[in-house]
Amino acid sequence: MKKVKDLRWHKGIDVSSLVRSLSETGFQGAEIHKACEIIMKMKKNGATIFFTFTSNMATSGLRGFFAQLIELGLVDVIVTTIGGMEEDIMKAYGENFLIGKFVPDDLELYEKGINRVGNIFIRNESYLNFEDTISKLLEKLYNKKSRWSPSELLSEIGKKTNDDSSILYQAATNKVPIFCPGITDGAFGFHLYMIQQKHPDFVIDVVSDFSNILFTTSHDEKKGLISLGGGISKHHAILATLINGGLDYAVYLTTSRSTSGSMSGATTNEAKSWGKIKDDSDAVTVIGDVTFTFPLVMIKVLDSLSKENLL
Amino acid sequence: MKKVKDLRWHKGIDVSSLVRSLSETGFQGAEIHKACEIIMKMKKNGATIFFTFTSNMATSGLRGFFAQLIELGLVDVIVTTIGGMEEDIMKAYGENFLIGKFVPDDLELYEKGINRVGNIFIRNESYLNFEDTISKLLEKLYNKKSRWSPSELLSEIGKKTNDDSSILYQAATNKVPIFCPGITDGAFGFHLYMIQQKHPDFVIDVVSDFSNILFTTSHDEKKGLISLGGGISKHHAILATLINGGLDYAVYLTTSRSTSGSMSGATTNEAKSWGKIKDDSDAVTVIGDVTFTFPLVMIKVLDSLSKENLL
Amino acid sequence: MKKVKDLRWHKGIDVSSLVRSLSETGFQGAEIHKACEIIMKMKKNGATIFFTFTSNMATSGLRGFFAQLIELGLVDVIVTTIGGMEEDIMKAYGENFLIGKFVPDDLELYEKGINRVGNIFIRNESYLNFEDTISKLLEKLYNKKSRWSPSELLSEIGKKTNDDSSILYQAATNKVPIFCPGITDGAFGFHLYMIQQKHPDFVIDVVSDFSNILFTTSHDEKKGLISLGGGISKHHAILATLINGGLDYAVYLTTSRSTSGSMSGATTNEAKSWGKIKDDSDAVTVIGDVTFTFPLVMIKVLDSLSKENLL
Amino acid sequence: MKKVKDLRWHKGIDVSSLVRSLSETGFQGAEIHKACEIIMKMKKNGATIFFTFTSNMATSGLRGFFAQLIELGLVDVIVTTIGGMEEDIMKAYGENFLIGKFVPDDLELYEKGINRVGNIFIRNESYLNFEDTISKLLEKLYNKKSRWSPSELLSEIGKKTNDDSSILYQAATNKVPIFCPGITDGAFGFHLYMIQQKHPDFVIDVVSDFSNILFTTSHDEKKGLISLGGGISKHHAILATLINGGLDYAVYLTTSRSTSGSMSGATTNEAKSWGKIKDDSDAVTVIGDVTFTFPLVMIKVLDSLSKENLL
Repeated sequence: MKKVKDLRWHKGIDVSSLVRSLSETGFQGAEIHKACEIIMKMKKNGATIFFTFTSNMATSGLRGFFAQLIELGLVDVIVTTIGGMEEDIMKAYGENFLIGKFVPDDLELYEKGINRVGNIFIRNESYLNFEDTISKLLEKLYNKKSRWSPSELLSEIGKKTNDDSSILYQAATNKVPIFCPGITDGAFGFHLYMIQQKHPDFVIDVVSDFSNILFTTSHDEKKGLISLGGGISKHHAILATLINGGLDYAVYLTTSRSTSGSMSGATTNEAKSWGKIKDDSDAVTVIGDVTFTFPLVMIKVLDSLSKENLL
Repeated sequence: MKKVKDLRWHKGIDVSSLVRSLSETGFQGAEIHKACEIIMKMKKNGATIFFTFTSNMATSGLRGFFAQLIELGLVDVIVTTIGGMEEDIMKAYGENFLIGKFVPDDLELYEKGINRVGNIFIRNESYLNFEDTISKLLEKLYNKKSRWSPSELLSEIGKKTNDDSSILYQAATNKVPIFCPGITDGAFGFHLYMIQQKHPDFVIDVVSDFSNILFTTSHDEKKGLISLGGGISKHHAILATLINGGLDYAVYLTTSRSTSGSMSGATTNEAKSWGKIKDDSDAVTVIGDVTFTFPLVMIKVLDSLSKENLL
Repeated sequence: MKKVKDLRWHKGIDVSSLVRSLSETGFQGAEIHKACEIIMKMKKNGATIFFTFTSNMATSGLRGFFAQLIELGLVDVIVTTIGGMEEDIMKAYGENFLIGKFVPDDLELYEKGINRVGNIFIRNESYLNFEDTISKLLEKLYNKKSRWSPSELLSEIGKKTNDDSSILYQAATNKVPIFCPGITDGAFGFHLYMIQQKHPDFVIDVVSDFSNILFTTSHDEKKGLISLGGGISKHHAILATLINGGLDYAVYLTTSRSTSGSMSGATTNEAKSWGKIKDDSDAVTVIGDVTFTFPLVMIKVLDSLSKENLL
Repeated sequence: MKKVKDLRWHKGIDVSSLVRSLSETGFQGAEIHKACEIIMKMKKNGATIFFTFTSNMATSGLRGFFAQLIELGLVDVIVTTIGGMEEDIMKAYGENFLIGKFVPDDLELYEKGINRVGNIFIRNESYLNFEDTISKLLEKLYNKKSRWSPSELLSEIGKKTNDDSSILYQAATNKVPIFCPGITDGAFGFHLYMIQQKHPDFVIDVVSDFSNILFTTSHDEKKGLISLGGGISKHHAILATLINGGLDYAVYLTTSRSTSGSMSGATTNEAKSWGKIKDDSDAVTVIGDVTFTFPLVMIKVLDSLSKENLL
């Protein structure tokens, strides 16, 4: 076991040095470092890496970071919710979101036509512009064929999203499938419905994506999961890998706790009940807001991979 | 404003009296009572009541309570995730879940073939039996027609589920639609995929349910939401009502917090930013595990409705 | 192991029946029931019961409930912080606190001379009245002697507090010592300081209370702890019992979690590392706001004790 | 308002750059950056800076970082609990703590004579060695005089603790008073009690420290608070500054929430109800484990101060 060692500042300390120090600091800091080590194992052992996140994370500035990770080949399969993909498109088409505050006057925001996601503000106008963009896009896609799986649809949209910082664009370009089992749960759902009103044979085939996600990996391959937040994205990735024999590595970054039996709060301890993860060194749960836990973890991982010429 | 008043025990105190006292106790206890008052308003003002919950709640003993609420006409529209519906079926077909503990030896559980959801244990056998039941049912339904919306499918399954304590059965019987925008995210998704492998024209039409949920209510009707936990269920109900002009009443019971911008943690304060809820007396967030907050709230509501002959 | 059983409402259900049902509901509901069983064990096995709570709980309507528990002989030793004792006195002398809300306009409250503790409001006037009362009382006590332990001082104040719903009064009357290791941390500290300015030989001897708390129990006696919230109160009770051989039973009710190594969030699992608690059936942690978890637990306990003629 | 901007990795990114990016990322990341800005204001406007932390933080590797901050003149007054000071001494005298895990076999730890604080392990031996050290020290101090305030006592102990990474040593050397209103709440309390057994006139005068903390600052001076975690330390600093006219700046780093009316969870929003903080730009609450939130905040502050030659 490592000894607790006093953290000390020196001028211009870099993130990787800080994270190395956190491994000897204890509490969640030590778990941050364990997360780095497990992701390094995933890469070095050639695991297929599943990556899940919730919509609010794509609303935040993490969106471009996710895109960069895809571009750099860090993740192989993505599972997420549609809200984040909508905002990825909005940003790609030039919309700006603002840093506001957590406890504003919500009635005043309403009167100004501003929507709030935590301390991030989005203008109604941004949603209206999105409507224009997406309905034209969907019309074109319908003209190609009438039955689409969510992952196919998102890949087509990604190809047309010409923005290096777009998750959809990088995923489409780098052939990383994006699964979205709850694809109607957003403004996107409304636009799909409008197309179906005009073209009753238009159908989103969510069942075929169950087949698609199963075939992203095989029973024999090593499988890892990096899960940010909880919800349907986390659950779906665990389900898909479980059918293929279970995860070999699991890193959860979340603010939820395990005291109510929800999937969002389920820790990697539970992962051991699936039978493949036998060792604590292959699974870790870091409790904290991903806007800082995830950059801490991944910057260290990227620096290390770069140093070892593995990037 | 009410004064803080000392709570006192007397022998055999009933739940309604306790909740009345909590209104004068402060902190989350006072919020419990506000939740009762807002649900009473929903009922008295004829609001269409949306009810959402996460899978783990149907895993718990709340499942029969939910069924009873449907039977008593307390809720009009349900949005949930498929995991809970699977377990509703498992229980209807005689499977038993066990009360275990939160911090067991997870490796030992694996060896015994036991799955853990918080402190509730489910045997692998229960899932296998579910497989038999559901695959036969789905085959029959495919023979009726090849394109199903999730709500239609769940209603058909509910009709065949002959158990008074079943959510699906009571919903089907009482014509309360159950929406499940992420219907493939569970063992159910695997069984749908197996049917599609055999019958490639079999398709689950999630888009048509977007239309169906919109038409459960109109722009002019009053609308209320009782949301337990977060995730896609909560988000979808808010989305559907927002398109129809927004909620008039909102009661959230959750363990999540609002500090990370997630929908699961979004409080009813945010609800005011939608413009319809102007008054604090129409929206409340109660923080705590629903296994006790929800019975406290609803037992008081049911007792009051019963007393006023509104049940 | 118990089976999960469906909870069902019937008219006028009492609290004890609800809690019995919760034992078969799962998640934190099941833990509520475990807490009842462990407290029953403490009583039946003649354990010395330590009871700790934080100031905000005496601010709430739980204050009279605590007083009643002392009157009924449910607890033997109390450890708490001074803020709650101040408010116990304020209430005994007729001050009223109000049920407000969690997200008010805090600047407006300031202008109105109102202080906020969560959703409970206290007028500045109440503090001023307290000042009058307490400074006269302390002057009189100084005239008796110049060196006081906190527990002696609080007992003397309690004797003069003629209010059946007062914690201090019931504790003094029933010879339940109240330990307050951080006695200067409140308005009370300021008044002690004023007395010492006038009378430099006035001294509060906190060290002697370390002796006093150790002698409330012996190494051989069975010891139980009911701890509400965390902080110095919880820590001090654990410390005092640990020196006397450790706890035999522990019930923690808290909203804190164990992910940061704080005492407030430490669960009863850790209690097993002290060596005496070997069995999960003797220790439980219930996560949730005490304004409802504690009444649920204790009403069931009181009803059961009453039924078995043990009250 | 700032726009949300995509975070991007480049090789060897330093902590200050990351924190700058977080200001445009949103959610808690943006609050991290606000904390930096407010602490910079404190320093530039010559505020007296109160610094509070809980025991577990001195158990972790943050201990040496705290010592360094004192050495660099970043803080003026410290309020904390005695447990952390005990461990500061233990480390100064050569004891080593280990990085373990959050969910170990607690019975096994007991048998090995290991104590657990979150995921940090401390051997019983370390406590025994502490006993030797501290009882000799206290005996010597008693020989000097019999009545000590906690801050005087800790300063004397600090002077004898020859370790640059010791909080007590740096505080004593740099004349930063350490207040410890609950000084008996730890193993230290037991040793004080042993001395008092031998020397009945030995007394710890906690009341005089109320005077001492009040005179660390005046009504007219600007006052700032950096509070890590909650409990008696946070409460005492707020109390002391409130009597002197209230805080001008407040930065809270905590994992607690404001939903139960506890001081630990009280946010800086409440601070506005005291009347001096009128502007959101002078107070912020960051939710997350301090082992990473505090280094992120302070490394950025130290780098900035260093760049502006203010260190």
